[in-house]
Amino acid sequence: MLQSPDSVRPAVLGLEPYAPGLSIDEIRERYGLDRVIKLASNENPLGVSPLVREAIERHAGLAFRYAQSGTPRLARAVAARHGVDPARVVLGNGSDEVIDLLIRCRAEPGAHNVVTARPCFSLYTLQARLCGVELRECPLRGDFSYDWAGLRALADENTALVFVTTPDNPSGFCPPAAELEAFARSLPPGALLVLDEAYMDFADRPEDYSLLPRLEEFPNVAVLRTFSKCFGLAGLRLGYGIMPADLAACLCRARLPFSVNILAEAAGLAALADDDFIAASRKTVRLGREQLARGLRGLGCRVWPSHSNFLMFGPPESRRLEPEALFTALLEQGVIIRRLKSYGLPEMFRVSVGLAEENDFFMDCLKLILER
Amino acid sequence: MLQSPDSVRPAVLGLEPYAPGLSIDEIRERYGLDRVIKLASNENPLGVSPLVREAIERHAGLAFRYAQSGTPRLARAVAARHGVDPARVVLGNGSDEVIDLLIRCRAEPGAHNVVTARPCFSLYTLQARLCGVELRECPLRGDFSYDWAGLRALADENTALVFVTTPDNPSGFCPPAAELEAFARSLPPGALLVLDEAYMDFADRPEDYSLLPRLEEFPNVAVLRTFSKCFGLAGLRLGYGIMPADLAACLCRARLPFSVNILAEAAGLAALADDDFIAASRKTVRLGREQLARGLRGLGCRVWPSHSNFLMFGPPESRRLEPEALFTALLEQGVIIRRLKSYGLPEMFRVSVGLAEENDFFMDCLKLILER
Repeated sequence: MLQSPDSVRPAVLGLEPYAPGLSIDEIRERYGLDRVIKLASNENPLGVSPLVREAIERHAGLAFRYAQSGTPRLARAVAARHGVDPARVVLGNGSDEVIDLLIRCRAEPGAHNVVTARPCFSLYTLQARLCGVELRECPLRGDFSYDWAGLRALADENTALVFVTTPDNPSGFCPPAAELEAFARSLPPGALLVLDEAYMDFADRPEDYSLLPRLEEFPNVAVLRTFSKCFGLAGLRLGYGIMPADLAACLCRARLPFSVNILAEAAGLAALADDDFIAASRKTVRLGREQLARGLRGLGCRVWPSHSNFLMFGPPESRRLEPEALFTALLEQGVIIRRLKSYGLPEMFRVSVGLAEENDFFMDCLKLILER
Repeated sequence: MLQSPDSVRPAVLGLEPYAPGLSIDEIRERYGLDRVIKLASNENPLGVSPLVREAIERHAGLAFRYAQSGTPRLARAVAARHGVDPARVVLGNGSDEVIDLLIRCRAEPGAHNVVTARPCFSLYTLQARLCGVELRECPLRGDFSYDWAGLRALADENTALVFVTTPDNPSGFCPPAAELEAFARSLPPGALLVLDEAYMDFADRPEDYSLLPRLEEFPNVAVLRTFSKCFGLAGLRLGYGIMPADLAACLCRARLPFSVNILAEAAGLAALADDDFIAASRKTVRLGREQLARGLRGLGCRVWPSHSNFLMFGPPESRRLEPEALFTALLEQGVIIRRLKSYGLPEMFRVSVGLAEENDFFMDCLKLILER
């Protein structure tokens, strides 16, 4: 029985809000700074591809039109890129929406469950709770690798989905394809393994880590990708899932009819065509990742190996600086990185790979703070 | 128990897909036409405001950045426009997302119910089904006015939401504020009345029809508005709800963190500032509505009075043309309007108000078809 017009479901009352990275404007205002660099949200260090920018400008006059429902042109382009049937592609308002739709479509509230690791991308947790679906979490191993046996032990005949992020966030760890393959084959018959490959474009040899090139062999595997990272479209919200065609058809029916906006569609098509920008983004990230890892280790930090466009690190244990104090000192210098408190890792940080000069500026600031 | 990796919830299997209007490109390709006019999706006849266009072009280079989560600047601007507390504003990826969030946050699956009219905007029906919430529909009266007693009789202590579209779609009917006021006061204590005012900007005297200017007096009323129609941003996906602050806070927690894209935010801020464009849009729609109503009646059509940017009409009963044949004949001439089959009104059509020359072209084509 409902008591008042603003009462809500208990599941919603208990939701922890998503903790986003701080924005440049917020920090500029708060500290009165001219220059602020943001290495907090794993955005593309090169910004927007020139082809994308031109496509947005060219389509600005179409903003009053609804896009074609389901954005079929973009679905075909994505399918062509990966060599899969377009009927297997589900586009979303970011891959966030595809994650939500997978849970809403497959998991019966109060009956089914979702399995994932801890820590994990908080959207899996938030959306499972919102959907009223049991969430089962298996801790990562000490080295941030996946505990396959532990995950398998949590899955049963009511497991609708198993979410695995690869490369993982926030660690950057990337399990080899052979491990994923064995894990997929071990799951109960009704469970769908969802490989969230948001950062796979930055892996050193994606073919050693992704099941996407051989997805036909795995009827119980779906892969998520995003245009937010390597394609530089975080602000436009565009992601997709590749999954069994019958399931894709259900998600498309359940999706809000115009969830992908018309400029995201135009920008996505342009981004897929800009091979030079993709190659340059990958190169910038690989070089910057090495530069940062080397520099941070030189400052005595512990750095985890990363296949992604970010690095997880812990400050030198010799320096007894509180994590929040270190974080704030960096903000005061105009550098935004990410504390990992919301991931349950209060001593740790994640820094996104920036341009070479941004990486240097961050490390110079960190050095000054550590030497104080 | 889950049988296979592509099995889905029964509620999803039964979903009818949303039936969108056809796109210009589709019809151009299908019939090999040069000129196609679309009067099917209630888009703004004037297109995009010049200020909006400029804002999109200026922000194109920011597409790689995440917007500030919850887009607080835009929430403040919307609040200022309506003179309400920003804490009461929930922005969404179109008001579609706000509708979905209201059901997800307030209605417990299997326990609560949602009340609305039949026919109604199909999203209420689709999202209630997806959420596993009982939907109760009260038929409109013969003149497409609301049956308040009938709606009230369907509401009980488990009614989470009552959706009323005003002006209504597809009829254009707009109930006077006094009726809404009495209805709001008659509802059970837990029910929230949601007034979907997507088209209210086109009403002749909005102050006679909207409760928004006096929303403080109605703790059990929420109002939805959209940037898709009068503000000309359908393709960018931007809408909002104004509701009790506690409920708004819950929706913001439950919302996907970056559901509103960064160009929608920039465009929304620009659109709110372009008073000339809003005034011109209203004027174009009012004049075009009269032009269309006069012309259609002159052709012997039955036309319903409309407060919106569309008209519902039935072809002359003397002409025994099947509705689908009439619809197709218009498509062949390059005119897309909307059949109302999916609204359960198979004999009727909805035409969006276009520019004067588009309205004329549509009526010329219709005249030719009716005279064949």
